Amino acid sequence: MAPEIFTYRPGPEDFVWTFGGAASKATVRPGTILELFTEDCFAGAVKQESDLVSEVCHFPFLNPQTGPFHVEGAEPGDTLAIHFVSIQPARDWAASTTVPLFGALTSTTTTASLQPPLPERVWIWKLDREKGTCLFTAQDSDHQVELPMDPMHGTIGVAPANLEVRSALVPDAHGGNLDSPEMRAGVTVFLGVSVPGALFSLGDGHARQGEGETCGVAVEAAMDTVIVIDLIKGRSTPWPRIESDTHLMSLGSARPLEDAFRIAQLDLVRWVSSDCGLSELDAYQLLSQAVESPLANVCDTNYTSVAKIRKDWVPGESATSSVHRRLSGLAAEYRRTVETG
Amino acid sequence: MAPEIFTYRPGPEDFVWTFGGAASKATVRPGTILELFTEDCFAGAVKQESDLVSEVCHFPFLNPQTGPFHVEGAEPGDTLAIHFVSIQPARDWAASTTVPLFGALTSTTTTASLQPPLPERVWIWKLDREKGTCLFTAQDSDHQVELPMDPMHGTIGVAPANLEVRSALVPDAHGGNLDSPEMRAGVTVFLGVSVPGALFSLGDGHARQGEGETCGVAVEAAMDTVIVIDLIKGRSTPWPRIESDTHLMSLGSARPLEDAFRIAQLDLVRWVSSDCGLSELDAYQLLSQAVESPLANVCDTNYTSVAKIRKDWVPGESATSSVHRRLSGLAAEYRRTVETG
Amino acid sequence: MAPEIFTYRPGPEDFVWTFGGAASKATVRPGTILELFTEDCFAGAVKQESDLVSEVCHFPFLNPQTGPFHVEGAEPGDTLAIHFVSIQPARDWAASTTVPLFGALTSTTTTASLQPPLPERVWIWKLDREKGTCLFTAQDSDHQVELPMDPMHGTIGVAPANLEVRSALVPDAHGGNLDSPEMRAGVTVFLGVSVPGALFSLGDGHARQGEGETCGVAVEAAMDTVIVIDLIKGRSTPWPRIESDTHLMSLGSARPLEDAFRIAQLDLVRWVSSDCGLSELDAYQLLSQAVESPLANVCDTNYTSVAKIRKDWVPGESATSSVHRRLSGLAAEYRRTVETG
Amino acid sequence: MAPEIFTYRPGPEDFVWTFGGAASKATVRPGTILELFTEDCFAGAVKQESDLVSEVCHFPFLNPQTGPFHVEGAEPGDTLAIHFVSIQPARDWAASTTVPLFGALTSTTTTASLQPPLPERVWIWKLDREKGTCLFTAQDSDHQVELPMDPMHGTIGVAPANLEVRSALVPDAHGGNLDSPEMRAGVTVFLGVSVPGALFSLGDGHARQGEGETCGVAVEAAMDTVIVIDLIKGRSTPWPRIESDTHLMSLGSARPLEDAFRIAQLDLVRWVSSDCGLSELDAYQLLSQAVESPLANVCDTNYTSVAKIRKDWVPGESATSSVHRRLSGLAAEYRRTVETG
Repeated sequence: MAPEIFTYRPGPEDFVWTFGGAASKATVRPGTILELFTEDCFAGAVKQESDLVSEVCHFPFLNPQTGPFHVEGAEPGDTLAIHFVSIQPARDWAASTTVPLFGALTSTTTTASLQPPLPERVWIWKLDREKGTCLFTAQDSDHQVELPMDPMHGTIGVAPANLEVRSALVPDAHGGNLDSPEMRAGVTVFLGVSVPGALFSLGDGHARQGEGETCGVAVEAAMDTVIVIDLIKGRSTPWPRIESDTHLMSLGSARPLEDAFRIAQLDLVRWVSSDCGLSELDAYQLLSQAVESPLANVCDTNYTSVAKIRKDWVPGESATSSVHRRLSGLAAEYRRTVETG
Repeated sequence: MAPEIFTYRPGPEDFVWTFGGAASKATVRPGTILELFTEDCFAGAVKQESDLVSEVCHFPFLNPQTGPFHVEGAEPGDTLAIHFVSIQPARDWAASTTVPLFGALTSTTTTASLQPPLPERVWIWKLDREKGTCLFTAQDSDHQVELPMDPMHGTIGVAPANLEVRSALVPDAHGGNLDSPEMRAGVTVFLGVSVPGALFSLGDGHARQGEGETCGVAVEAAMDTVIVIDLIKGRSTPWPRIESDTHLMSLGSARPLEDAFRIAQLDLVRWVSSDCGLSELDAYQLLSQAVESPLANVCDTNYTSVAKIRKDWVPGESATSSVHRRLSGLAAEYRRTVETG
Repeated sequence: MAPEIFTYRPGPEDFVWTFGGAASKATVRPGTILELFTEDCFAGAVKQESDLVSEVCHFPFLNPQTGPFHVEGAEPGDTLAIHFVSIQPARDWAASTTVPLFGALTSTTTTASLQPPLPERVWIWKLDREKGTCLFTAQDSDHQVELPMDPMHGTIGVAPANLEVRSALVPDAHGGNLDSPEMRAGVTVFLGVSVPGALFSLGDGHARQGEGETCGVAVEAAMDTVIVIDLIKGRSTPWPRIESDTHLMSLGSARPLEDAFRIAQLDLVRWVSSDCGLSELDAYQLLSQAVESPLANVCDTNYTSVAKIRKDWVPGESATSSVHRRLSGLAAEYRRTVETG
Repeated sequence: MAPEIFTYRPGPEDFVWTFGGAASKATVRPGTILELFTEDCFAGAVKQESDLVSEVCHFPFLNPQTGPFHVEGAEPGDTLAIHFVSIQPARDWAASTTVPLFGALTSTTTTASLQPPLPERVWIWKLDREKGTCLFTAQDSDHQVELPMDPMHGTIGVAPANLEVRSALVPDAHGGNLDSPEMRAGVTVFLGVSVPGALFSLGDGHARQGEGETCGVAVEAAMDTVIVIDLIKGRSTPWPRIESDTHLMSLGSARPLEDAFRIAQLDLVRWVSSDCGLSELDAYQLLSQAVESPLANVCDTNYTSVAKIRKDWVPGESATSSVHRRLSGLAAEYRRTVETG
């Protein structure tokens, strides 16, 4: 039986700005394919170099979320699996900016100083969707350089635990504004469910992003994104996890950055230990030598660090892997259907 | 004219344990090839699973340094360039351990808690130098896995500024215990000179290491290492920099970890800006989208973060690149000589 | 005209567990005296040494809030003033505990480690409300010592900005779980209003607390508390501020702790500069020599630091001082009325 | 028998700039009274508003140390006790400044940003040594205010462990640039000895200082200081400790600031537990309710936090208390002798 396909293209009034606290836009069943449009982090308001964030954007109306969606049968203590089938820029340009008192190389409202903010700037990047490149154009010289696109979603998450509602600018245990380049097509993300229906949403597409998102803003793009979802009943997931064809990844979000690192590394030690059959100390040793630790963001309200290990280096298979395989299979089938019309 | 070759194999009494504060072992000229032996971080005392660090090692006699060497003509304000020709494990095994109150997933003497330390353990890794692999053997199950070797030096540095002498366990602006997997054969490291002669040394070889060195200890190995050095007069280098055939890299060491990140990212922005012809804001934007940020260590007295950009993405060539090319050429010539006997 | 008096004693079903996201319990006018009962942080469930938090409490049902109350006329951009007339323990005992993976001298869920948690313990403190003392009784020896009571509220806050709802365990710009010993009878706290009606609540009384709340739990007590409120229209307050008869105080909440310090110090520099007639640099200099910086908590989801300066050391009077005087006057009048029956 | 008196007034060539790495200026016996002169942190170079630090000072020649002194019989594992008999400003003025990229409310070389530094300024404070006050004079308005003097030493320390030599700008386990207002006349400081003779020195007098030393510079004054020393054989002291007539205090220095807090709190828990007869958990509980936690500095290479408890709240007497009493007695005797000529 072909999977159910749900298509949703929100209009300007349909976006939400939080994880939790918003009514579900639709109920979807595990196994459903969702074809979605997401607006860029500026809600589309930054279109040219003269569109300064402080003038055209209105805090906290940033990172517009497509969703939330109620997943049939999802209950606290379950795990929601979301597989990215494809993430494609919806326009032939993207925008990046500095934002006053935001970013890693400036004082901020919390790393507070008496210094004035950096100058406010907008860079428009041209996207060549055929070639899969994005073009940087310097403002103070004539340098241009084409970088490969590597489309990803900055935000994906569920309603948080503890009765909370969090801004779409915040990454935490519920996911949210993780800003990790690992959130690309082909991976499956696992999120612990805290409220009935999970209430997941996503947004904040990036045509590409450096590790750490140094200036606080990536190559921000509206996206046409296809996902397929599943539900793992009775399995809890304390922090966001990602599985690719080759790697298991844990994500930690906290400040200071070493705490984000600790969370991610400990979660991966425990994942490998509980699912794959190593003692905690053996897993600690193996990961210490084998782990990749790409930074996601060092600019948001919590910083995010990823811990990543090759699946063929651990003894057993994670319980998530069969879900990743099934969703990858549905994704392949969907792509074949689309291509063959 | 063939480059001068200097060979030095220290005996047990020849090691030093600090950067700065030790007499030069020899004076070497820029352009010299150095064939060196370095002992492992335990000074060779951990040879089997029963050799617990707390029993066989004597703090602060860890990270024995080979050197220091006085570089002819080096003066404060210059930059020392050290190119790694080859880094080869000197034995067919290496050791890793937990160390009480040391590492990222335990309380420590500074991230102090009332909890008892983790159990103390030793893992002996078998090295297959032909295949270039190292074998992990679990202690609490029968899992074994071969990982690729990726030999590197945890410590390389010069005498620090400010009249200081630092333990070989400390990474900072002088280099030292950076514990970065990027410090592998084929790269050139650039260190700012703070005292006459620079007084550089190296040690702490790792057969491989995960990013962040989570448990605080890598696959620790004695090394036969060949380097070739050069001197850039009148160029200062505020934090350690590395150049490979493809990338420019800046290293920052500090706590909390976000400060190490900030230092590295800002240094790379300024390097690209001053050497390669971008304004600081354009460099900030480009790097935000293009940077890789592999963590080095999140366990030492300072944490170390790397910022890394492809050389073909920046407009001009760094002044360091001609040095890297010349030293790479000397390295190639040396390898040909050695191979042809 | 005598001030309006509003009395509210919530039952077990009346508590809320968040700032924001809860319906107002009552609407109160500026100038109203509120006589309130607050339950302790454990919702009254820890009554004896055998009542372990992990068994009798149910996360996130901690820090029960009395309120929220809608303040007539309060709008975003205004400042709510709350003066503590009196804070009196409602029972003759109070409880403190360790909580697994919570507190400053243990690893936690974010400062994550592989170590097991500390032992779980409960200490019951006897309160002598006549003498104003609380009695510590050691469990592992026969030491007893009477400490002076210094009753305070750990939590006081308004609905947060940015459409968020935050757990009553969180301190941030909206106030919340600040856990500052400065929140005692006689002071006026100023909170920026983010939603119509402000929606303030309070709870988490402490018979006394050390600076930093090291183990994460104070001498937790139900309280009979009287407050009087006022509204400053058109004045925004970015972070919680407190005024006593002698001092101006700013509170910052963030991680790492130096960011909480920076926020509080910068806010006090700007307060003194904008209200009292010093340039920012002169205020920076004066405060650097004159400030007291008592820590509030170093255990909660954000840490909280206080910056505090004597009012007679700054040139002019803060715009808040007339509000503090008026509310102090109403408090004095109320106390006279109560005493004379 | 009257105590031995040693008088030492260094000239410009006599200062040292490190802890460790400098030859002893004199050998002194336990029980000796030392009458010392210390120059201000600027080495006396900032005398008027036009003397900008960046122009008249030469890094790292800051915090000139008077000493070091070799204490007869001191060996690693012992504890040096230094009692402050008196600390008196040597001139009728003192200086404070901003320093580019130094201080809590600016980006720095490690909390690195792209922002330009704050303006550089010098404030000259008038000292009235009769009245015991220091006069602040605003530069951008006509505000003046007299603050009480509270003279203290920013730096006091011994040669560090681990073969290191540290700049006099660094606070750590050896003491050094702690910048704590608790280092005032009447207290005894205890420092663990790491090298034969201890090699202690002091400097960096402050006429007064706010908690945290927000701008990085206190009211910097040359001092005439009298101390009396003692030695506790066979007692190790892991971090600096202070005893006053009323309090026991532990000092921790680290980054981030919460680690400085943790070190100090844990050291005080262990001090009270091992010396005064409480279990560690009982001490943890008592301190959590009883501790004062005044910040020392939040600007130096390590931040410093103090944990402080009243002596009459713990059951037994610390082994340090008899030393504090004896030195206080010698101090009283010395003052009587001086007063009666």
